[in-house]
Amino acid sequence: MNNINGKINQLIEEKELQKKLGETVIFTGSVYKIRKMSGFSFIIIRTARNLIQGIMETKEGIYTDLCENACVKVTGLVRKEERAHAGFEIDIMELEILSLPAAEPPVVINNKELKASLETRLDYRPFTLRNQKERAVFKLQEGFLAGAREFLMAQKFTEIHSPKIVYSGVEGGANMFKLDYFGRDAYLAQSPQAYKQMMVGVYDRVFEIGAVYRAEKHDTARHLNEYMGLDLEMGYINNFEEIMETETAMLQSVMNYLAINYKEELEILKVELPVIKSIPSITFHEAKDWIKKEYGREIKDYYDFEPEEEKLLCQLVKENNGSEFVFVTHYPTAKRPFYAMEEEGAPEVTKSFDLLFRGIEVTTGGQRIHDYKTQIEKLKKREMNPEAFEGYLMLHKYGIPPHGGLGMGVERFTMSLLNKTNVREAALFPRDINRLNP
Amino acid sequence: MNNINGKINQLIEEKELQKKLGETVIFTGSVYKIRKMSGFSFIIIRTARNLIQGIMETKEGIYTDLCENACVKVTGLVRKEERAHAGFEIDIMELEILSLPAAEPPVVINNKELKASLETRLDYRPFTLRNQKERAVFKLQEGFLAGAREFLMAQKFTEIHSPKIVYSGVEGGANMFKLDYFGRDAYLAQSPQAYKQMMVGVYDRVFEIGAVYRAEKHDTARHLNEYMGLDLEMGYINNFEEIMETETAMLQSVMNYLAINYKEELEILKVELPVIKSIPSITFHEAKDWIKKEYGREIKDYYDFEPEEEKLLCQLVKENNGSEFVFVTHYPTAKRPFYAMEEEGAPEVTKSFDLLFRGIEVTTGGQRIHDYKTQIEKLKKREMNPEAFEGYLMLHKYGIPPHGGLGMGVERFTMSLLNKTNVREAALFPRDINRLNP
Repeated sequence: MNNINGKINQLIEEKELQKKLGETVIFTGSVYKIRKMSGFSFIIIRTARNLIQGIMETKEGIYTDLCENACVKVTGLVRKEERAHAGFEIDIMELEILSLPAAEPPVVINNKELKASLETRLDYRPFTLRNQKERAVFKLQEGFLAGAREFLMAQKFTEIHSPKIVYSGVEGGANMFKLDYFGRDAYLAQSPQAYKQMMVGVYDRVFEIGAVYRAEKHDTARHLNEYMGLDLEMGYINNFEEIMETETAMLQSVMNYLAINYKEELEILKVELPVIKSIPSITFHEAKDWIKKEYGREIKDYYDFEPEEEKLLCQLVKENNGSEFVFVTHYPTAKRPFYAMEEEGAPEVTKSFDLLFRGIEVTTGGQRIHDYKTQIEKLKKREMNPEAFEGYLMLHKYGIPPHGGLGMGVERFTMSLLNKTNVREAALFPRDINRLNP
Repeated sequence: MNNINGKINQLIEEKELQKKLGETVIFTGSVYKIRKMSGFSFIIIRTARNLIQGIMETKEGIYTDLCENACVKVTGLVRKEERAHAGFEIDIMELEILSLPAAEPPVVINNKELKASLETRLDYRPFTLRNQKERAVFKLQEGFLAGAREFLMAQKFTEIHSPKIVYSGVEGGANMFKLDYFGRDAYLAQSPQAYKQMMVGVYDRVFEIGAVYRAEKHDTARHLNEYMGLDLEMGYINNFEEIMETETAMLQSVMNYLAINYKEELEILKVELPVIKSIPSITFHEAKDWIKKEYGREIKDYYDFEPEEEKLLCQLVKENNGSEFVFVTHYPTAKRPFYAMEEEGAPEVTKSFDLLFRGIEVTTGGQRIHDYKTQIEKLKKREMNPEAFEGYLMLHKYGIPPHGGLGMGVERFTMSLLNKTNVREAALFPRDINRLNP
C-alpha cells in the first residue's frame, strides 16, 4: 500500500517568469507559433493564460518533430528583452516534446484575429478556442461570475443548485424542452424561479449560477436555447428598488474585480470596462413616450419593447445621462408572470424592471407576491389551476418575507461587455435551433 | 428619471450582534419558536444562518397576530445572557410583522431534530428545509464547493460551464435521458468528460461544478438521477498519481476551509471533519485479495466492487491505516471507458482510481489517452465508430498534453461527510426514479 500526499505542481506563468530574470526555469505549454529566422527560431509557447516568447538556435537534426500544436516542456533562461510583449524572452536550452498533433490545423488560430466565419469557428470550437482572443472571452466570463459570487457571498447570499429536471414549469410550459423521465413527461427548467423563492424562506438571500433552458424557435443573434443564468433572490426588502440597488452594487463590484484580476484578458480583448456611478431608471411608459417623441416612432406594441426600441432608448440615455446602462421599471402586468407584484393603486403595472446594457436587455427582475391569498387570487384570475402549483405555493402558505430578485443572462452580458454582435461568440459551446454539436 | 445607486442593506447575524452588547439593534427574521412563560415570552428568531433568542414582555391586546413562521422586523437591546447559546439575548422593544403564514405548519420543524420520515421531509422540502439542522446540510455543501473552488482557482484552474444538452454521449447512450430538440433526438449529458478534455487543450487546467444526469433505474440509498458533479481535468501530468495528489491536496484545503468558515454548521450538525494527512492507495486486485483473505469472502465479480466490499475495504483501511479515505487504483480495462489509458505492459488494467470515503465511492478518475492513433485504435477495438466522435477527437487530432482528471459526486460526498445513510438527505430537491417534485 502506498501513501498519497497532497501536492500539486505549480503552473508557472508570465507574471512569475517576469520575477525570474537571469534564472533557469522549467515550464510547460503548447507551441503556438514557430517563426524561423536565420540561424534561430522564435518559438511562441501558449501557457494556461499567456503567450511566452522563446528563442532557440537552429540545430541540424534535432527537434525535427517539433511543430505547432506540439505540447512541450521547456527548460530555458529568462532574459530581459524590451521588445518582447512581457519584457522578457526565454532562451531555450532544452525542449522536451510531450505530445504531437496528428494533423495540420483546420483553421489558422495563431494570428491575433481568428479570420474565419462564425460558423467555422463554432464547428471547430474545441480547436479554435485555443486562439488567444477566443479563449480570453471565456476567461473573462469566468471572472464575471467569480466577481459576482464574491460580492454575493460577502453580502451573505447562500449559493444553491436547484434541479433542472422539473415536473412542470412555473412560468408555463409552452417554451420548455420535454423529456422522457422513466416513462413520464418531464421538462427542463426555464428558470430557477420557484426554487430560489422557496430558498428565500430558508436562507433569506440566495443565488444560483446554472443552466437555463428555453425551447424557443428563435434564430437570432441574441437568443440561445441553453444558457447560463445568474439568478438571485432576496428577502426582507422594503421595495423593489432595493433589487436594482443590489444589482448596481454587484455590477460595480464585478467591474472592480475584473479590473484587478483579469487585466491580461481586458488587454487582449481591448475592453473598456463601463464606469458605473449610478444607473438611471425610467418607467416603461415614460421610455416609450420618450422614444416616440425623440425619434417620431410609431408605437406598435404597448406592452413590450421591440429590439430596435431597446437600442434607441440606450442611445438616448447615453446621450443624455452618459450611462451605458438603464433600468426600465413598471412593465405592464399583462406581460409579466403571475408571481409579479402589482403596483399599489395601479394594478396594470408591476413592481418590476429590466436592465438594458448597450442596447440589449440583460436582466429581468422585480418584487414577487408573498401573500398566499393574493397569489391564489391572481392565479385564478389568469385561469391557472392553483393545485398544479402545490409545491411552489408552500412558500407562501407557510410564511415568506417580502422578497424579490432578478435573473441575468451571462452570455448576453458578456456579449454586450465585449461589444460582440452575436451571443454565440460569448457561449462556450452554443446550443441553438440548428446547433447541437460539438 | 431617477438614479439608482449601488447599495445593499447589511444582514445582521449572531456574530455581529455579539459585538453589540448594550446597544439597540434592528434586524429581520422569521419567528422560529414562541415559548410563553408567565408575564413574558421567549421569541426565537431564525435569521439567514442563526437562531437568535429574543425575550418580550407579554402585553395584552398587542402582537395578537404574532405566530410561528411570521416574518418580522425586530428592534431590541442586545443583553448579555450566559444561559443563551450565543451568550446574549435580545430584549425586544418592538416587533413589526412583515408577513404572516396562511396555514399551520404541516410538520413540526422547530425542534432540534426533525422527527418525520424521509418521505415526508422530501414532500414538504420547501418548508422542512427551514429546520436549523436540515438547512445546515446545504450550507455546508455550499462551503464544500466554495472551498474546492478557492483551492482550484489558486492552482490556476479555469472554471467552465459546458452544455448539458448533447448530441450523443461520450460514455455511450444507454443510461441517458432523451429529449426532443426541435424534432431531433438529444440527450442530457451524463458527464462533462468530453468538454473538460477539450478545454484542457485551451486552459491546461479546468474544472466544472454542474449537473450530471444518469437515467439509471436504480432505486437505492446512494443513487440520484440528477446530481451535482465536481469535475476537474489537468494537463501536463507526468503520471496518474498526480491526479490523486491533487485530490488529496484539494480535500485537505477544503476541510481547512470548512473549519474556518462553516463553524456554525459543523457545530449544529456535530460533524467531525476527517483529518487528512495522506491517503492510502491500494490496487484493485490487492484490495480484492485483502478482502477475500480477511473476511473469507468469495469473490463473485472480478471486475468491480460490490457495495459491501467497498464498506469492508474502508473498514480494513481504517483499522490498519487510520484513514477514512482510500484510493483504489488500476481498475480492469474492461470496466473502464474507452478513453482510459492502459497501464504500460499491463493493458488489462488502467491508469485509473476511485476514492472511497467511509464505505462509499465518491470519486472516479484517471489518466486519459492523449495520442490520436491510440484512441482511434481503442475505439475500433471496442467496435465503436470513430466518426461518431468527430467533435471529441479534435482534441487528440490537433494536439493535447498528457492529461487526466476526476469526477466527484457532491451529494454523495456530503452524505459521507455528515454520516447520513441516504444520499437524498444531501440533495436539495432530489430526483430519483419516483420523485420529480417539488
